[in-house]
Parts: sequence; C-alpha cells; structure tokens
Amino acid sequence: MAINFPIIKKTKQSNISAKNRGMNLETIINESNEYYLNNNKAIIHKKPTPVQIVHVDYPSRNKAVITEAYYKTPSTTDYNGIYKGRYIDFEAKENNNKTLFPLKNVHDHQIHHLKQITDHGGIGFLIIYWNAYNEFYLMEFSIFYKYYLDSINGGRQSILYQTFKNEAHLIKEGYLPRLNYLAVIDEKIL
Amino acid sequence: MAINFPIIKKTKQSNISAKNRGMNLETIINESNEYYLNNNKAIIHKKPTPVQIVHVDYPSRNKAVITEAYYKTPSTTDYNGIYKGRYIDFEAKENNNKTLFPLKNVHDHQIHHLKQITDHGGIGFLIIYWNAYNEFYLMEFSIFYKYYLDSINGGRQSILYQTFKNEAHLIKEGYLPRLNYLAVIDEKIL
Repeated sequence: MAINFPIIKKTKQSNISAKNRGMNLETIINESNEYYLNNNKAIIHKKPTPVQIVHVDYPSRNKAVITEAYYKTPSTTDYNGIYKGRYIDFEAKENNNKTLFPLKNVHDHQIHHLKQITDHGGIGFLIIYWNAYNEFYLMEFSIFYKYYLDSINGGRQSILYQTFKNEAHLIKEGYLPRLNYLAVIDEKIL
Repeated sequence: MAINFPIIKKTKQSNISAKNRGMNLETIINESNEYYLNNNKAIIHKKPTPVQIVHVDYPSRNKAVITEAYYKTPSTTDYNGIYKGRYIDFEAKENNNKTLFPLKNVHDHQIHHLKQITDHGGIGFLIIYWNAYNEFYLMEFSIFYKYYLDSINGGRQSILYQTFKNEAHLIKEGYLPRLNYLAVIDEKIL
C-alpha cells in the first residue's frame, strides 16, 4: 500500500470534534505558539519528528532526496521553549476514551525526560485533548508523575477523566491564541 | 547518483583534524551532552534534523517506510535545554577557513531565534570549531550579533579568527566530557 502523507503519523487517526473540525491538536498548539512568538510573549517550538535517514539520492547537484527513512521513537517531548525567563517543556496527546487516559500513551523516556526537566527547575506539563468532551486540560507533570508511580507499583494503568477535572486545569479556548495555555501557567504555576 | 548516508548532511564535508579523527563536531557535542545528562548536570538535546515527509509506504501492518522526503531549512538552532534552571540555546558550526568565519554560515532565522531567546532571558551562544587550529570556541550571542549587525550595515561579512581569540572563549578539551562547554558558561556567563 502506498499513500500520500496528509498529516504527521501520530495524529493520522485524529478525530477532533465538530467545533474543531479540520484541526488537529498539533495544529492548534502550533498556531498558539506562533501567536505567542509573533507577540513576543514566549518562544516555544515543536521539535521536528525524529527520522532515521538510511538512503539519500542526489538527482542534481544541489538537491537531496531522502528515499529511505524510518520514524524513530522520540527521546524527548514534542515542545519546549522559554517563557518569562523559564524553561518550559511539554507533551501533547489526544484522547478518544471517554472515561480515562491510558498512561501507556506517554512513552517512558518522555516521562523520564519531564522528570529530569522539573528536577532541574523547568516547568513540565502535559496537554491532553479529550475528544469526547472537546476539552483541553493542562496537567502539571508532578500530578501526572504521581499517577505514573502508582501505575508502576501495581495501581491503575490510567488516569480518570474525573481526576483531570479535579487535579488538572481546563484550558480556555479563544480566538487569538486559540489555546491560551500560558494563561494557565500564569494563574496556576508561576 | 545514489549513496548510503553515513552522517548528517551538514557535516558530510567535515574534516576534523588528526587529534579528533573519526569524530565530527555533532558527535563530540552529543557525547558531551550525554555525559552531562548521565551525571545529572544539564538536560541538553540536539533537535532532530527537520525533514519534509512527502510519501510513506506501509509494506506491512506496523511498519512505515518513508520513501520520499526532503531536508527543510531549520527554523531554530540545533541544541537547547536547561542548565542550573536556565534555558540555554546554541548552534554549532565547523569552520575550515584559516582566517575568518563567514557570517553566511549561520542562517538568518537562527540568528533571529537566538536574538529572541536572549531577549527573553535565555543563554544563547555559538560553538565554532576551527579545523585549521583544532580549537573550539564558545562565542556569546551578544558578541556574534554585534558583528552580524555590522555586516548587514555594509561592514565585514565575516568574523576574524583574531576576534575569536579576543572576544570568544576557548573551550578546553578533555576526556569526560570531551568538550566541557558548560565550564565556560560557569566561568564567563553565569
């Protein structure tokens, strides 16, 4: 099977609900980051998708065509940058489940990375989009990590929606920026 | 012409001198960063090379093979992370010229990015390897930017080796880490 490649791999099954039709979480966050950048509020970029390049053709002098490459497992999170002089770092995930967020949706080395970042004084968190409710939550890494430790000690392998309502922060949607997650950082973390 | 792809594109003409034979600048920095990470001193990663993916094959259910992709111009620097609670951000370049470093070796949007980072309180710099002398210099972005502004106002389009000796910081080479550039940050910047 050969297909053209519409959006990045991890979101190809994205199913953003009616209000956000045509958008995926990555696009929404990238647009918000672009707004922050253009308004000199924060410098936050998505890291490129890591790719293992195996073979490259040079059909003409100045043009390189990658003809064989593979997706690599990312060793860090997707987003990092600087806000009000602080290092910030986060991972974003869509969740199609109605009642729980499976912890296996976040890679172990991403969790390890966020633990290191927060230990070194950075601001680490996750943005989780709940498709069933069209809600975006910012969960501080310290909260996420508590449930992660529970899970590796034999506890629940997921975080309940109700826990997000109680212990994470709902991010308000707006026009510009679309997803003002830095407002949550201002109100709840800094 | 079709070739196998040994190292990343930008360093394929790397010509690290005898003492560092078999190493390129990226490898040396990555190893140093790994040392910092393993010793819990700093969390600094190289960003993946940005690639525009055009076509992907799925020869089997769980395997994706990228069969057409192109190098994209990076919009940020190669390295960023956190050290002693501070956001740090830098670009690394090899230089084969004996007397000067051409400013065109650094992309305009990388310069713009480093300007934004330092304006927001981050630590921004460049690491330049002078192949002719087997010397690594750390140049603070503020110094680099002074020469960059000169160049766009009709001045010299390069920075002289002598200027590196006078206004940048020689990085000592060692065993672990190979290139202890954070020691320069400690001594000269923090």
